[in-house]
Order: sequence, then structure tokens, then C-alpha cells
Amino acid sequence: MRVKDVKKVVLAYSGGLDTSVILKWLQTTYRCEVVTFTADLGQGEELGPARDKALLLGIKPENIFIDDLRETFVKDFVFPMFRANALYEGMYLLGTSIARPLIAQRQIEIAEQVGADAVAHGATGKGNDQVRFEIGYYALKPDVKVIAPWREWDLTSRTALIAFAEQHQIPIAKDKRGEAPFSVDANLLHSSSEGKILEEPWDAADEMVWQRTISPTEAPDKVTEITIEFERGDAVGINGERLSPATLLTKLNALGKENGIGRLDLVENRFVGMKSRGCYETPGGTILYVAHRAMESITLDREAAHLKDSLMPRYAEIIYNGFWFSPERRMLQALIDESQKSVTGTVRLKLYKGNTIVSGRQSPNSLYSMKHVTFEDDQGAYDQFDAQGFIKLNALRLRLGAMAGRKGGAL
Amino acid sequence: MRVKDVKKVVLAYSGGLDTSVILKWLQTTYRCEVVTFTADLGQGEELGPARDKALLLGIKPENIFIDDLRETFVKDFVFPMFRANALYEGMYLLGTSIARPLIAQRQIEIAEQVGADAVAHGATGKGNDQVRFEIGYYALKPDVKVIAPWREWDLTSRTALIAFAEQHQIPIAKDKRGEAPFSVDANLLHSSSEGKILEEPWDAADEMVWQRTISPTEAPDKVTEITIEFERGDAVGINGERLSPATLLTKLNALGKENGIGRLDLVENRFVGMKSRGCYETPGGTILYVAHRAMESITLDREAAHLKDSLMPRYAEIIYNGFWFSPERRMLQALIDESQKSVTGTVRLKLYKGNTIVSGRQSPNSLYSMKHVTFEDDQGAYDQFDAQGFIKLNALRLRLGAMAGRKGGAL
Amino acid sequence: MRVKDVKKVVLAYSGGLDTSVILKWLQTTYRCEVVTFTADLGQGEELGPARDKALLLGIKPENIFIDDLRETFVKDFVFPMFRANALYEGMYLLGTSIARPLIAQRQIEIAEQVGADAVAHGATGKGNDQVRFEIGYYALKPDVKVIAPWREWDLTSRTALIAFAEQHQIPIAKDKRGEAPFSVDANLLHSSSEGKILEEPWDAADEMVWQRTISPTEAPDKVTEITIEFERGDAVGINGERLSPATLLTKLNALGKENGIGRLDLVENRFVGMKSRGCYETPGGTILYVAHRAMESITLDREAAHLKDSLMPRYAEIIYNGFWFSPERRMLQALIDESQKSVTGTVRLKLYKGNTIVSGRQSPNSLYSMKHVTFEDDQGAYDQFDAQGFIKLNALRLRLGAMAGRKGGAL
Amino acid sequence: MRVKDVKKVVLAYSGGLDTSVILKWLQTTYRCEVVTFTADLGQGEELGPARDKALLLGIKPENIFIDDLRETFVKDFVFPMFRANALYEGMYLLGTSIARPLIAQRQIEIAEQVGADAVAHGATGKGNDQVRFEIGYYALKPDVKVIAPWREWDLTSRTALIAFAEQHQIPIAKDKRGEAPFSVDANLLHSSSEGKILEEPWDAADEMVWQRTISPTEAPDKVTEITIEFERGDAVGINGERLSPATLLTKLNALGKENGIGRLDLVENRFVGMKSRGCYETPGGTILYVAHRAMESITLDREAAHLKDSLMPRYAEIIYNGFWFSPERRMLQALIDESQKSVTGTVRLKLYKGNTIVSGRQSPNSLYSMKHVTFEDDQGAYDQFDAQGFIKLNALRLRLGAMAGRKGGAL
Repeated sequence: MRVKDVKKVVLAYSGGLDTSVILKWLQTTYRCEVVTFTADLGQGEELGPARDKALLLGIKPENIFIDDLRETFVKDFVFPMFRANALYEGMYLLGTSIARPLIAQRQIEIAEQVGADAVAHGATGKGNDQVRFEIGYYALKPDVKVIAPWREWDLTSRTALIAFAEQHQIPIAKDKRGEAPFSVDANLLHSSSEGKILEEPWDAADEMVWQRTISPTEAPDKVTEITIEFERGDAVGINGERLSPATLLTKLNALGKENGIGRLDLVENRFVGMKSRGCYETPGGTILYVAHRAMESITLDREAAHLKDSLMPRYAEIIYNGFWFSPERRMLQALIDESQKSVTGTVRLKLYKGNTIVSGRQSPNSLYSMKHVTFEDDQGAYDQFDAQGFIKLNALRLRLGAMAGRKGGAL
Repeated sequence: MRVKDVKKVVLAYSGGLDTSVILKWLQTTYRCEVVTFTADLGQGEELGPARDKALLLGIKPENIFIDDLRETFVKDFVFPMFRANALYEGMYLLGTSIARPLIAQRQIEIAEQVGADAVAHGATGKGNDQVRFEIGYYALKPDVKVIAPWREWDLTSRTALIAFAEQHQIPIAKDKRGEAPFSVDANLLHSSSEGKILEEPWDAADEMVWQRTISPTEAPDKVTEITIEFERGDAVGINGERLSPATLLTKLNALGKENGIGRLDLVENRFVGMKSRGCYETPGGTILYVAHRAMESITLDREAAHLKDSLMPRYAEIIYNGFWFSPERRMLQALIDESQKSVTGTVRLKLYKGNTIVSGRQSPNSLYSMKHVTFEDDQGAYDQFDAQGFIKLNALRLRLGAMAGRKGGAL
Repeated sequence: MRVKDVKKVVLAYSGGLDTSVILKWLQTTYRCEVVTFTADLGQGEELGPARDKALLLGIKPENIFIDDLRETFVKDFVFPMFRANALYEGMYLLGTSIARPLIAQRQIEIAEQVGADAVAHGATGKGNDQVRFEIGYYALKPDVKVIAPWREWDLTSRTALIAFAEQHQIPIAKDKRGEAPFSVDANLLHSSSEGKILEEPWDAADEMVWQRTISPTEAPDKVTEITIEFERGDAVGINGERLSPATLLTKLNALGKENGIGRLDLVENRFVGMKSRGCYETPGGTILYVAHRAMESITLDREAAHLKDSLMPRYAEIIYNGFWFSPERRMLQALIDESQKSVTGTVRLKLYKGNTIVSGRQSPNSLYSMKHVTFEDDQGAYDQFDAQGFIKLNALRLRLGAMAGRKGGAL
Repeated sequence: MRVKDVKKVVLAYSGGLDTSVILKWLQTTYRCEVVTFTADLGQGEELGPARDKALLLGIKPENIFIDDLRETFVKDFVFPMFRANALYEGMYLLGTSIARPLIAQRQIEIAEQVGADAVAHGATGKGNDQVRFEIGYYALKPDVKVIAPWREWDLTSRTALIAFAEQHQIPIAKDKRGEAPFSVDANLLHSSSEGKILEEPWDAADEMVWQRTISPTEAPDKVTEITIEFERGDAVGINGERLSPATLLTKLNALGKENGIGRLDLVENRFVGMKSRGCYETPGGTILYVAHRAMESITLDREAAHLKDSLMPRYAEIIYNGFWFSPERRMLQALIDESQKSVTGTVRLKLYKGNTIVSGRQSPNSLYSMKHVTFEDDQGAYDQFDAQGFIKLNALRLRLGAMAGRKGGAL
């Protein structure tokens, strides 16, 4: 912000030290009214302290917003994304990326409601989250002023930050005085860790990094078998019990955690142009990914599946880069949602020490035809002779090429 | 073949009962000279008996071709494919698909050498392999006559087949009298099982199906740590020891096998239009896939990686459908190979009960810049303020849309 | 058909000599009841004679179906396709391809209505139309029997065909005794000519081939200026006059015809594997294509437009190959239709001797912001300084690559 | 540049008023040594005056670089791009985009040669050219300092610019005192005009905008017929006369100009996020585009062509956005170049009042098989019966879908 005329700002506020410092810095630097917004996205922290701290820092009660967004998060963000089998760079289930647009959306709703002209977040200038927040802000409220303190202030060392906190009577938990050995983000879908002790990509991640799953080596010696029920592309139950989206994901997280499922140690490419290394834990999401693919395997037409697969990298990139609220994401979502109408049925899985193993799938909409595929007598369901013409015409262009001197598909 | 004027045919001959029946059937039906071709692709069977049996069935010694193609298979087929991180339908490492073009190629070479006008294979009329063989034949020798006995003859039951074998004095191993409970294909990259007891996709695969890997539950309780060395996209060594392509894959197979790695139970879509269920074991290939992605993660530029990822489904489909010898595969290969010039370095992995876990990657060509990504003072390597302009211009079209009434990326 | 037990067949019947011979051949070969279906798709022929001829050939009145499908054709087939800016192989507006699924659909509706177990068409075994018809049939009525006389009978020469016609008292127009110098297909969207005198791709098409447009060299020396009005991606009016879909296209055809617009002489790749040469005339469609792109140019978001463009070749291929009634086409259509919500406004065009020239576009939903783009003082709408950060972060990965020795984007 | 310690800067210098002001501004603001680089890319201006003016403004003779890059431009930039049939947003032949990387490349070469630490260009902060220049600079010399005066200085009005020029004794041509009615960029491939009188997209472009082509309405009343000869994807001759790349394009430009070919009035989407309206003239390029597609139509395999077409929008976007020197462009180029090996032969065209009409194509590598496509007796080249199996297996998945209740390809 080079424009200093901010009147009221809605801050994405976690209640932690960093966003508390931001809160106070906004008050002192912009001399504007600060509204705090704290969301429960399943990060596993109490929200009460955030309210207390906001009050302590001088925020008026009517300016403190605390929302439980867990069901919205899973139903309207996580599930639509999982319909696409989205993996960024072939591996990453996008746990952080998918939470940011919801926070941005709610922040803007609050800004409209309280008449704020600005929003602020606590993401740094090196990462993807600043992009995801701000793209969301601008797409939803094009005239909003955006304040990104980490890009603006001079509190660039831990010492400076602590000094500012002390100077402004911001309470500092004992264990926050020193620097954390790595940085964590968490929500109902995943936890991510990065930075500091994780910065050297040749060094194995320390076991302390993994907080949401037990190690495969520590997981039980026995297989846990479960079923997941799907309707129109979304999981709706576990072991026959119908569950709300957030409840279902919570349960899958527990199952994944105790079986050591969903760890990923990845070097990825950030939208801002550098590579970074992250350690991700997506226990329930990993199970859901495998199950959804298995559900699709018997209910989706081949070309429908291949079309989805061919667009998936683009879809994942869009979300990773922060363009959830964009025409291109909406268009792809329309295509993906259209494909899921018959993705209904049950998948059976074995969970065991880091493995999610499909052991069965069934559906009222199955396209799997035992009558056709059987090695036994198929009673005329399939005429093997058809294959000859099929192959000959598929080969024709290559035969014509070979006759013209381009053997073996040469160009 | 409606044209019966075949003079000499090169048969892809395994030495087993089925292709022995085909051999005799070709002799009696087409009254043509039969040349047998048996390849060692690492399927794990002795080739000596194939020669003996061919001789027994009246094939002239000069018409018996037996080749060890393992190094060619891995170097010229498996490795180029792994450069693409090819997965069919998100899961399948294409172990059968990639072997067929090599067999077809060698069969046609032999046909040219011995002056044969026809080739024959033992694939059925329902599967993909017939397509893969025949597309290869036609692309390499456009005037070749193709005989696919399973689409032509009336030996459509096991009983009829055995009767034909007995009538023609074809030796029948005791355990081949009855029907196998499922059908198997194997080579150095993988084993696949399908059919019969595997036809119901809701039924879990019996443990007897898995022949090339021990179960994760039976695998050792301790982690095996290895390194894989890469040069220009191909694996060249394990634990610092330089190995030839086939030797390397053989060693990875052993490592994968004993750690329960590489099983896949999948319902897939065949090119001929039906779904089928296969159980695949790709122990070494699974490790190689994970390692190659990790190697790329620090050596490939982001857009190079994303471009590859976006084309991978198409590339995998091309190979699955049998179009290895095609212009489109060659074009994509040119793109992929271009990308691999700097994919050189070392990946460290932990193998444990079905898991292949990346624990480190390093490269002389690394694009990972600790100087840029660090949470510490980066001494000006990266100007966080740049992010503001980056975000604002990336958001501009969405802001203009929102100003025109299309908030949140609405269309 | 190897199965001869056909009871009742619905024939796509034009009333011409060829389909009359087919009608009689079906009666004599399959000894089944024949139902004729003749559609007005705007091919420019009277349908009365088709009825008379069917009666003459012994078809019962209740078995004669004649439908004017022009509005359906344009509204439900042509317009959805034009929303995609579909061009096959960069050039072809798919005039024949888009008509086939509608004919197939109506034929199957009639089959269901009259209880027919079979359908028949007059397309040859070399072309795309057989595929388009039959894919449609099978997708809509999976158990239908399909009769394709040209692939089955022995009337393979003109002489044999005429002899059969004479033998069965089929009236033969004088000018149909000899062979036509080329083959024609027509509907409201286009006319296509191919075969015979057009088979040598080096020879220029004779002027007589072009039947639906006057030559650019013969077109008026003056410019005709028109406007086309769009709503949600579809043309709804010309020069301010609201018109029904078929009326609108008819009028555009007249405008295109008299201005020599819409000719295309193309060598294309057929789905069955060979190349063919076609001369196409799409006068109104060519104008519509240019206008629709211009309409989108101010109303579509950039990434929405680019996503559409990237999928267009696949969409066009799907339609060309005959897969209108497929999940993949429906999925892409959902994406495309989603994009068109704001494609509303007016385009002004100059038509002149083969040229369709955009001279203006306006829209209530325009995303064009003169305030931003202006070379004049923009009063802060756009901060040029933002571009620096935008460029620096877009370049960062390339800079990191160059620092690692890969200058100029080398790999 | 916030860092002011520039020692020596290489300026892309046209000799015009704007870059002369920049030259002087660099001297006075950065107090650094200025090196001028002026390229002949076929923009149609004498380069002598640029040298004189640079000398006049105090540039040392050894710091003045003037290069004729026309052959390099066409051979290494224009032709590779035309192999891809690149069109941005379906219409634009990328005439400006493709020139920028060559200028950037040469500027960096000079910087390395003279030991300059900075480069500067005269593009504004709103357009694409700044991005194209700077991406090139950074990719080739990652530590280079980039000066973009239009984003930095306060000479934001014409008056201020003229005043600065007068103050520094920069000669001002009489016709440059007022503002130009629109802005022009030109090179051997095209001229573009934008801004000012072109800013309202509903207003037709004034005829004065078009400088490089005569109007179709003014073009000769007779058809000009030419042939273009190709080798491996590049044009090598016209009417049988072998020509160097730049000579060839120059001649095509003359042919296009006099026949009113290659005008385009377009609203396009800039990389920086806004829409703009440009009037482009690409006379020779338009002819070349049509001819190249026609050459490919008989020499490229279907899937090779479709693969190219599916990647073309991405390739065009990469070039438009300024990423010529990038891994992704190089990878796509490898794929495209691989496809062109047999794109050799001759295309015959008719040029007439804005139209480029293909009237014939022939090639020693033609894949067009008259034997197969003929309507006459093909003597067994093609077995029509093969089509039945081809269609039946292509339809199988849709039939299975319909049997499962999803008729017509429903999902």
C-alpha cells in the first residue's frame, strides 16, 4: 500500500504472535480501525483465545468475527477439488491452496458487512499464500485495498518482531520467543511444514516435522479395512454410516493418522518463481484420493476419464496459483461436475502402514461389463472379429506412412 | 486373414501350450512355413525349452529365433517412457504395453530377414495386446499379413484346445490341463494378472495372484535406504554403483519385491472399449517412478515440468493403445527428451512395507535456490516488494471482470 | 449385418437414386419392413418427391416420416458448436459432421416409435459419415441392428446400381444415369463436394464445384456492412432484427453467398485413416465464426478464452469423428456453455468479395477498459510500476536457470 | 531500478524522438555511459540517421551498434514460429512478439561485449513489449540491470517530453511535435497500429491506419497465382525461384500488399491483464500461414497434425507473453521441428483482393493416397468391411453406457 488512507481493515487473524503484531502494526501505522476475522478450518486450535487476545489488543467486540467454516470448507472447496483428482506436480493434494480462497471470501464478506475499505493478511512476500489471498480479494472486491505487512514493514528479524511485541504489550507465549524450527500451516485437509530445518532438500525431514500422522513404521501391524460410499463424485459415508462432509474428512483423518498414511516430502515450484521444499500430511485426503479414483474406475466412461486426466494438471495449477475465483476454474469445474453424475457407489480399502490399497469397488452405475470382458464364453456379447477392422483402420494412416517411406511412424 | 495365401509366418512364440497350439494350427490351416521367435524380456522363464519344443513341433533350426532383448527393452523402451513419468489412468505404469512394440519390431526384423510375408501372435480378440502387436507390425511393414488365431479359429474352449494339442502330439504340462485361475503376462518391468477369479471387481484379489512381490504385511520391519543416480533423465546407478539398464532394473525389482512395493489392483479402460480389471506388480518401476519425479523436482524448470505433466496422460494413452511406433509418440518423445538434459543427480529413498519415500535429492544442476527461498535474511536475493506488482497484474483481469459485474471470477 | 433377422428398418432416405436403390435392396435382401425418414436440414431440396417416391416403392404411408428439422439443427447443433469456435484441422467448419448426429437421433426416435429393430444409411465404407451415423445409433439405442448397404452389397459399380434400379422399376432421372463428376452433401450450414474430378489435390477445383457461393471475383464491387447481435454466445439478430436460429443462418447464407464468402478447398484427415480432399462452402457459418470470435474478444476473460482455444481442437475432432453423443462432448459443452454467459452484444462486419472484416464490437458486458488501456493519462487506473514486479517474478525461474548455467531458457 | 549504480547501459535505440529522449535521460539521470543498439528488422527505415543522431547526442562511435538482422530474424525466429502455425487468440500472427526476443538477445550480446551492466528499452509500462524485452534480458543475463524509463520517469505527457527534448537540444522533426494519432511498430513480418484513435473498439479503423497493404477494395481486379516451395517446414522459394528467408518474406510482403492481404483488426488480451485493440498488417505472413497449412495437409500424419494443433495455442501464448527464451518454448519447438521433416513440396495459391486461396498442393512425401480415397474401384486397397469392426469397437463404450442407462453419451 502506498495509499495510506485506510479507514477500516479486516485482518485474517489467527490469534498467534505474528498476526497480533500485525494487528498492532496496522493500528499504529495506518491508524485505522481493525476488524479481526478468525476462522476454524479444522486447524486444530481453540478459537476462544483469539477472541480474548483481540479484545486485549483493543479490538471492539463487534469487530471480532470468529467462524466455524469447516463444513463449508469441505463441502464447497475440498470436495469439488477432489472430484478432479487434483494433484499439483503429480504429488501434492493442495491442502493449503484450497483453504485460502475461503478465507479471502469470508474476509471480503465481512469487509462488505462492516464497511471496511481494506483487508490484510499475514503471508510473506515469498510464498504462494499472499497471491492466493490477494487474487481472491481483488476478484471479489476489485476496489479493495490490500495490506501485506510482511512486504511492507521493517520487522524483518525475529528480534525486531519480539521487540515490537514487547513495546506494544502483546503477550508472548514462552515457546514463541525463540524461532520455530520450521513453519506450519494446518486445516482440516492437511498440515504443511516448511522452512528453516527443512530448507536443505538433501537432508531427510526430522521426525518432529510430522505432527498429524504417526510414522508408517510406528503404525499398527494389522490391516484396517473400510468402505467409503460415494454419491455423484463426493464421499458421503464411511463403513455404511452417512456423514457430513467435515465429519467424514475428520474421520478419514483419524484413520489415516493411525495408519501412517498421507505423508509427502516434496520440492515444488512456487508461482512466484522459486522452488521450495514442503512436508505435507494429508491423511484423510490421501485415502479419499485413492478411493475416488477407484470409484471413477467403474463408473466413468473412458474418454470422460481421460479428458479429466488431461485437464487435471491445469486445474491443479489454477488452484495452486490462487485462481479459485476465476472464470477458468469455474469452466473446468463445470466440466468436472458434469462428469460426476454417475460416480456413485462403494469402494473398499485396506489401510496399512502408509498404504491405501483398493480391494473392491461396486456401483449401481457400473460400466464394467463382466459379460464382455470375461475369458469364458461371452455368448456373443462381443464379436472378436470386430477387432480386425478396428485395428486395420487404426493402423491405416501408419501403413500409408510406411508405404511413403516413413516406417515405424517416422516423420 | 481372409487371404489364405500365406507362405511363411513369423510367430511370437513363448514355448507354452497356447502358442504351441497356434504353431501347429498355422501349419495345418495355412500350410505355410513357420518361423518362431522367442524373446527374453525378463519374464523369468528359461528359453531353452522353447527351442526344444519348437524343434519337436517340426520347426527347422534356422527358423528358430531366440533373443535376449532385456537391455534393449529397458534402454530403448522402458527408460524413454519413464522420462515422461507415464501413468495410464493416473495409476498404471504400462508394464505390458511397453513390451509389445519391441516384440513386434523384432518379429518384423526377422520377417524381413527370412523373407516371411506374415506374422502371428497369441493375443486374444478382446484385449489391448492384439492392437499393440498389429499396430507395430503395420507401421513397420505395411504389406505384412497378420494372423491372429484367437480371432479366427474355433478352438474357443479349453477342451477344444487340449483336444487339438493331443491330436497333434503337442506336449501338455500336467498343470496346464486345467484352466489357469487367471492369466499372467510378465517381463522385466512388471507382471500382470487378469481374468477368471479376478473378474469381479468387488472381490479382493487373492494373495496367490501376487507373484512378484511379497505382501507389505510380510515385508521386513525395517527400512531399507538406497540412493539412485540419474543422468539426463535415466537411472544409471544404485547406491553409487553404476549399472546397465537391465541390471539396474533387475536390482530395483529385487529391492521392491522384498519391501512389498509396486502392487496395483486396477479397473482400467481398454482401447477396444470395455473395462477390465488387472492386478499389476511393478516393483522396480514403482521405485523408479518416485525417484525420477524427485530428481526432476530440483532439476526441471517449473514450466518444463508442468508442460510435461500436461502431456503425460496423452503420452501414456498413446503407449497403452499401442502407438509406440507413431509420429505422435515420436514428437512427444522429442519434447520429453529435450526436457531431460539436466535431470542428473542423486535421490535418496526409504523403502518400507509398500512405501517408497523420498528422503533427499541433490544435483549439480539443481535449480533449488536456498538463497532465495530461505526464511532467513536473503541479503537482497529476492525483493519481496516485487510480489505486489506481480499479484496486482495477475489480478487485473479479474478486477476488471468484477468491476463489470462479474465478481469472484463469474462468467 | 451378419445377422439376417431384421424385422423392421428405418432408412435415412433422401429420395434420390442411391437411397431408393438401398430401399429396394433392403426389401429384397432382408425381406423386412422398411420405414423411410427424410429430413429437411436445409439442403435446399423439395421433400414432396421423396414422399411420392417412397410410396411408389411400396412404403406404407404410415411408414413415411418427413420432418423439417431446420430450427432444431441450428439451435441445438450448429449454435452450440459455434460457441466453441470449432474448426477441424484449423480450417473446416464441420458442416457435414454436425448434421449427422441429428439425423441419427431422429432415426432412432422413429425406430423406437414404430418398433423397428434396425436402421440403415446410405454412407459408404470409406468415409466419416458411416461412423457418425452409427456412433449415434449405438449411443442412443445400444441393441439396434445397423445396416450399411455400401459395405455389404455387390452393387459396387454405377452400372450395377443402374441395372438394379431398372430391374426394380426405380425411376431414374435422366441426369443420374451417368456418374456425377463429384459427390455433394448439403444442409443449412454448408455444402461439401468431393470425389472424382476433385481427387487430385494438385488440380484446382473447377468453378462448377462451387454451387452455393458466387466466386469472390464475381461478387459485387461494393462493401456490404451488417451487424450481428449476440446473446449468451448465440447470434440472435441481424441488423437489429431479431431472427430465429434457422432464419438467421438462412439470411447469413444469402449474405455470404452474394459476397463470395465461405469457400474452402481442403485436404483433411478422415477418422478412418486416409486423407481426402473436400471443397466446402459455408457462407453464413464463415461470417458467424468471425463475428462470434469478435464478440468474445471484448466479453470473454483472457484465461477463459485461452482455455476454450486450447480445447477447441479436441472438441472439433470429437464432432468430426462422430462422437456428438458422448460424455466427452457433453463435458466440453458444459465448459464452453459456462463461458458464454456474458457473450452478448453487437458486432459490425464488412462483407466484400470473400472477406469478412470486423469493423466494430460493443457489449453491455464488455471487459475492454479504455480507462486502463489508454495512451493518455489514465488517472491512476493502472500503476505502471506494478509491471516491474510482475516481470521480475515471471522471470525469476529463468534467472535462476541462467544462474545455474542454463542461459536463454536452455534445458 | 531502485539501484542507481549503473555504469554502462545498452539502449535499444530507434533513432526516433522517444528513444533519443530516453538516451539523454539515461545520461542525465543515471550519469552512465550509453551504448546504442539499432537493428534493421525490416521496419523499413534507414539506419544511417540513427547513427548520426546518436553521434549528435554524444555517443562515442565505438558505442554505436547498428545491425542488419533481417535474415536472422526470418530464419531463426519467424520460420520456426510459422512451423507451428501459431495464431494468438485464433487470429494474430504475432508479428511484434516474435521480434522482441531477437532484439533482447542482441542487446545482451552487446552488453557482454562492451562490459555493460545494464540495458534499457523504450516500451511503456502498460504493454507486452516491456515483458518480452525484459524476460529475454533476464533469461540471457540474469544479473543484468534493467531500465524501463517509461515506468520510471515523470515525462508522462507529450508536452513534458518535448520540453525535455528542447532543453537537451534533441532535434525534433516537425511532424513529431504533435502527438501521433496512433502508435506504430513495424518489422519484416508485420506492422501494428494501436492507441489513440483506435482506442474505441466500436469505431472502425480509419483507412490511414493501414500503411503496409492496400485495401482489398483497391486491389487489382485480377487473380495473381503463385507457388511456394517448402523444405522441411520452411518456405524456400516462390514460383520456383529459390530465395533466402528474408528475401522470400520481402517478396511475399509485396505480393500480399498489392493484393490487400493480411489486415486484422483485433481486440486482444495482453499479458499484463487488460484488453487492447490492435490493427495488424501481416501481408506475407498471412500468405505463408495459409500455404504452410496446405503443405502440411498432404505431408503430415493426422495425429501429428492434431497434436500440433492442440499445442499451438499454448505455443502462441508463450511467444505472445515473451517467453521465447524458455524451456517450455524449446520443448515445444523440439516437438514441432520433429514434425516437419517431411513437410516438403509445393503449394499453389491464388491471391485476390484480401483472399489467399489454396488451389493445389503436391509433395514427394505426400501421404494422400488416391488409391485409397477414390470413389472408383480401388482394387482392394481398402476393405470397406473393416469399417464395421472399427465403428463397433469405437462405439462399444457408448453402447455399454447406454445399456447402463446413459443413452446418447449421458454422464
